[in-house]
Amino acid sequence: METIVEDARVGVVSPELVVDALFACRKTAAIRAAIELDLFTHINEGKTAASLASATSASERGVRILCDYLVVHGFLTKESGQYRMTPSTRMFLDRNSPAYMGAAVEFTAAPEILDNFLRDPAAVVRNGGSSGLANVSADNPVWLKFARGMGSFTGLSAKMLAGEISGWPRPPKKVLDIAAGPGVFGIEIAKAFPTAEIVAVDWAAVLALSRQNAEKAGVAHRYQTIAGSAFDVEWGTGYDLVLLPNFLHHFDLPTCAQLLRKIIASLAEHGRIVAVDFVPNEDGVSPPFPAAFSWEMLASTPAGQAYTQSELTEMARLAGLAGVTVKSMPPTPASVILFE
Amino acid sequence: METIVEDARVGVVSPELVVDALFACRKTAAIRAAIELDLFTHINEGKTAASLASATSASERGVRILCDYLVVHGFLTKESGQYRMTPSTRMFLDRNSPAYMGAAVEFTAAPEILDNFLRDPAAVVRNGGSSGLANVSADNPVWLKFARGMGSFTGLSAKMLAGEISGWPRPPKKVLDIAAGPGVFGIEIAKAFPTAEIVAVDWAAVLALSRQNAEKAGVAHRYQTIAGSAFDVEWGTGYDLVLLPNFLHHFDLPTCAQLLRKIIASLAEHGRIVAVDFVPNEDGVSPPFPAAFSWEMLASTPAGQAYTQSELTEMARLAGLAGVTVKSMPPTPASVILFE
Repeated sequence: METIVEDARVGVVSPELVVDALFACRKTAAIRAAIELDLFTHINEGKTAASLASATSASERGVRILCDYLVVHGFLTKESGQYRMTPSTRMFLDRNSPAYMGAAVEFTAAPEILDNFLRDPAAVVRNGGSSGLANVSADNPVWLKFARGMGSFTGLSAKMLAGEISGWPRPPKKVLDIAAGPGVFGIEIAKAFPTAEIVAVDWAAVLALSRQNAEKAGVAHRYQTIAGSAFDVEWGTGYDLVLLPNFLHHFDLPTCAQLLRKIIASLAEHGRIVAVDFVPNEDGVSPPFPAAFSWEMLASTPAGQAYTQSELTEMARLAGLAGVTVKSMPPTPASVILFE
Repeated sequence: METIVEDARVGVVSPELVVDALFACRKTAAIRAAIELDLFTHINEGKTAASLASATSASERGVRILCDYLVVHGFLTKESGQYRMTPSTRMFLDRNSPAYMGAAVEFTAAPEILDNFLRDPAAVVRNGGSSGLANVSADNPVWLKFARGMGSFTGLSAKMLAGEISGWPRPPKKVLDIAAGPGVFGIEIAKAFPTAEIVAVDWAAVLALSRQNAEKAGVAHRYQTIAGSAFDVEWGTGYDLVLLPNFLHHFDLPTCAQLLRKIIASLAEHGRIVAVDFVPNEDGVSPPFPAAFSWEMLASTPAGQAYTQSELTEMARLAGLAGVTVKSMPPTPASVILFE
């Protein structure tokens, strides 16, 4: 169906985009089923529906229909009844690949996340945000799913951020990682700066996982945690670096500025605040992922969105800062935001 | 994001297809919100978020974020803060267009339909079908949603089928329309053959709507209804034509053959059985919509699927018939199946 997308863009009238959107949930269901059955890993060098069914303890009819659907949507190829992965599927959905992203489905298709979107999406638009606190309620268990599932989405940007900071004239010694999630941002900094001490803030259930990841990375002896809301907890002072990875987009601009003021009060001399976030262009409709991300926040939070550079500048000024420097991090859809 | 689809097809490794699938439910939510707010109709010749918000009694922030998302996904364009429809959006999502398809969202994104897919998609694959009866349970209210929403999907194929039958040497006088839904197939036959009598079978709640549509079409005096399951009700004999529009795909092959035998017993001399359905090629993975449709049935029914021509032939033979002639009906994804 995807080829029709091009036609629609060059002006040919077609219902394909509409049909794709009307049925799009089926695609999420299919990829979730395939990931949960670890179908892609089992396909390896090519398998029939019968052998895949046996490998995954599933019905052959079910596997054949799912695999055919995945062929239609470009995830697999099929020849003489044999299914094979595409190069992209092999890279991102085979569990043996270092770039495996399959775990993300636990968060992106979590029942509570889908409910944010599908319960009453028109009400979200009427209301200008989620009706309740949704994802930003205290101790929301969805953040453990985020921490478990989304490390593969944020891992590369965490490495790139550590690379960026490695070029700074003053290596950070005391680092605060706010809303640490899987912990990858703080952990990459700890790996890049062998004497840096990391303090991670997040909900208690999430921090149990961040600590595990710090242990795996061999930096647990320099890794402390503080459980609670970033708006409420006392995290002390003297930070050379405060990280805000994928956090600001959950709140309205004045709330973000208020948090920045709290952070500024805890900085050491020459301390820096660095956010990682999705920054749409000023047109609000490019690049695709950052621009689409505000819809993610509209449904999932009362007042969050992806902020443009000019909005981030306004946020910085409201907090008493001079402004921001934004650097995109291709191939990731994220940007580094350096508060000045 | 769609341009990356091409790259993936020519071998460039990209996570975009995976990301699209992981987040695809957001697209269904967005199109549902836009349709329920009648946003496309309001956009008309171009509108700002502020004027759209006022026209739809929605939050300006909510409307702007939704519209930006719809621009990212190719449904709208944006220039100087003004949103405009694409030619395809104008054709299929403006309520004033005769090809308006927006009502379909009531069925395709119905909570019970989405639940079939999203509650536990891996279990559907393991099981080789829905765990319960799902869509095929008696008097399932989802069929009223189908009848209300899907007339725009089936209307063109109904007109094309009536055109096909108009070329037959013997005009049908008594016509049975099994699982009539919105009634469009029987009604188009009634319009094409001014003396034809139609007997429509479906659940009672659905038939109330089929009858309304027959009234609107001016054929109500030649339109009778029988409420109940096609497998159970007595519909009498003497039919010159029996229609099976979008019905066979809900059941396994032997059940379809059993229904065909019941139909054969009710035919007049020279009576014909004609199904309308999605017929994938023998490879099971083309054309896109018919091939993907088996996944729709895997999640929505215990044993249904889209049947290939060779499977339809087997079905016909099991019922004591010679075989089938299948004719595709472009630009619709449906085919006419003439049982011989």
